[in-house]
Amino acid sequence: MLVSESCLAEPDMLISTQYPIMVVGGAEDKVNGCDILANFFASAGGAGASIGIIPCASREPAVVGDRYYQLFTQMGAKQVQILDIRCPDEANELRWLEVLNVCTGVFVTGGDQLRLCSLIGGTALLDQIKLKLRSGKLVLAGTSAGAAMMGETMIAGGSSGESPSQSLVELMPGLGILPELLVDQHFHNRNRMARLMSAIAAHPDKLGIGIDEDTCVAVDGVGTFQVLGKGTVTVIDPGSMTYTNHPQVLETAPLSLHNLKVHILSQGDRYDYRNRRVIATR
Amino acid sequence: MLVSESCLAEPDMLISTQYPIMVVGGAEDKVNGCDILANFFASAGGAGASIGIIPCASREPAVVGDRYYQLFTQMGAKQVQILDIRCPDEANELRWLEVLNVCTGVFVTGGDQLRLCSLIGGTALLDQIKLKLRSGKLVLAGTSAGAAMMGETMIAGGSSGESPSQSLVELMPGLGILPELLVDQHFHNRNRMARLMSAIAAHPDKLGIGIDEDTCVAVDGVGTFQVLGKGTVTVIDPGSMTYTNHPQVLETAPLSLHNLKVHILSQGDRYDYRNRRVIATR
Repeated sequence: MLVSESCLAEPDMLISTQYPIMVVGGAEDKVNGCDILANFFASAGGAGASIGIIPCASREPAVVGDRYYQLFTQMGAKQVQILDIRCPDEANELRWLEVLNVCTGVFVTGGDQLRLCSLIGGTALLDQIKLKLRSGKLVLAGTSAGAAMMGETMIAGGSSGESPSQSLVELMPGLGILPELLVDQHFHNRNRMARLMSAIAAHPDKLGIGIDEDTCVAVDGVGTFQVLGKGTVTVIDPGSMTYTNHPQVLETAPLSLHNLKVHILSQGDRYDYRNRRVIATR
Repeated sequence: MLVSESCLAEPDMLISTQYPIMVVGGAEDKVNGCDILANFFASAGGAGASIGIIPCASREPAVVGDRYYQLFTQMGAKQVQILDIRCPDEANELRWLEVLNVCTGVFVTGGDQLRLCSLIGGTALLDQIKLKLRSGKLVLAGTSAGAAMMGETMIAGGSSGESPSQSLVELMPGLGILPELLVDQHFHNRNRMARLMSAIAAHPDKLGIGIDEDTCVAVDGVGTFQVLGKGTVTVIDPGSMTYTNHPQVLETAPLSLHNLKVHILSQGDRYDYRNRRVIATR
C-alpha cells in the first residue's frame, strides 16, 4: 500500500494534551495528512510509540492489520505489532498479554462490531486494556466497529430511511470502555440519526454520540472530549426527556421522544460528557 | 386510477376539531384507509366540501390533478375543481379567484416547490387563500412540495449523507402560510436531518419541522398542531441555542449548533409552536 509523504509529517493540529481514548467515526483519512491517525500516533508517544493493532472486527484481519501496520511504521513508530486474534481463547493467552504489555497505543480497526466483541469481550486482553487505560499507560483508538464497541450498550446494526422505531436498531452489549456513551459512527454519511434516536429511546440513561466519517471524539480529560476532523459529532442528551412511548408501542410503531437536548459539534468544540454540557471555548 | 373501497369510508381517526392547515410529509396513503386525505376531506366539510386542487408544483399537473380529483370525488365531495394554473398571471385572473371563492378546502400537491412558488407567490390567488384561512373559511393542505412552501423560508433543495454545512441546503423564500416554521418533508425517509439542521443554523429564528412520509402536522388551534399518520414529526427548536459557527466558516465546513431542543413526535402528540412546548396529553 502506498502512503503519501504527507502522512509522514507531523499532524496539522498541535497536540497540547494526550488523548487517552479516541473514538473515530470510520473512514479516517489515510492518505492526505492523516490528521486523526497522526494525532493518535503522537498521543501514543510518536517516535517512541509501541503500537498494537487489533484487526479482529474484520473478516480480513491480515489485510486490514497490514494496512495500519504500514501506516504507523511509516509514521516512525518504534514498534508495531498486530494482535491477530482468531478465537476468544487466544485473547487470554500470555503471548498476546505480553504484546499488549509493551504497547503505548492500541488501534482497533473497523469491520463488524459483533465479531469484535465476540472475540475480545470478557477476555484477559480486554481487562488488561482497561487496566492500562485507568493507569494512564495506554492510548486507545477505535474506528468504525472499533468505535461502536466503546459503550456498555452497542448498536450492532439497524436501518436508515425510516421513522425512529424500536425495530430500526439492534442493540447488544458493548465492551464498556466508555460506559456512559452510546456510539454510532459513519453518522451523517450513512444517515443514522433515526437509529441513534431509536437507541436512545431504549437507553435514556446513556448519552447518544453520532460521529461522522474522518471525525473523532478525542477524550482529553476526565469526562471531557474534543472534536477533531472533517465532520461533526452529534450529541443526543435525553437527560431532560419528559416522555417516550418506548416500549409501550409496537416494535415497528413510530417513537416519541420529548425534550431532547441535541448538540452538533465540529472541530475544536469541547464537551463535558460527565456533566453533559458544551464547554464554552469561543 | 383505482381507489380502494376503504378510502371511501370515514377516516379511522375521529375529527374532534377542524384542521385549518394540514402539512403533509409526502407519499400520503391513497389506497388503504387514506387517513390523512380523509381527515382533510372531513375537515373541509365532508359531503358538503367544495375542494380545489392546486397541482402547480408538478410538471404533470393534469395527471397529478386528476389523481386527487378522482380521490376526493370518490370520497363524496360536493364539488372538486383543479386550479391548473400554468403562469403567474393566470393566478391573478378572476376565473380562478371565483373557483377559490367557493372552495371549503384547497389541496396543494407535490412536485417542485420552486415551481409552485414561482407560479403562486405574490399573486391575488395566494392573497385570497391567506384571507380565507384567516377568516376560517378554508382548510388548506399541502403535501411534499405543498408542505415545503408553508414557511416564510423554504428548503428548495439539498443533499443527505454529509455533515451539516451551509452548502448542504438551498434556501429560498416560501409562501409564508405558517411563517414561524421551516418545513422539510419525506424527512427520515430521505434522511434529511442534516439539511434541516443546516437550514436552522441559517435561520435560528425559525422552528425546524421535519415531517415523515404519510405523516401530517395538523394545525388544530391558534399556534398548535397535532401529529397524524404513520411516521414522526421532528421539531428542531433553536430558541436556546448558545452558539453556531454559521456563517463564519466556509460554506462546505461542518457546522456547530450548541444546545438545540429536539422533539420526536408521533401520532397523537400535540405541540404549541407559538410557545415552543410539547402539550402534555398523556
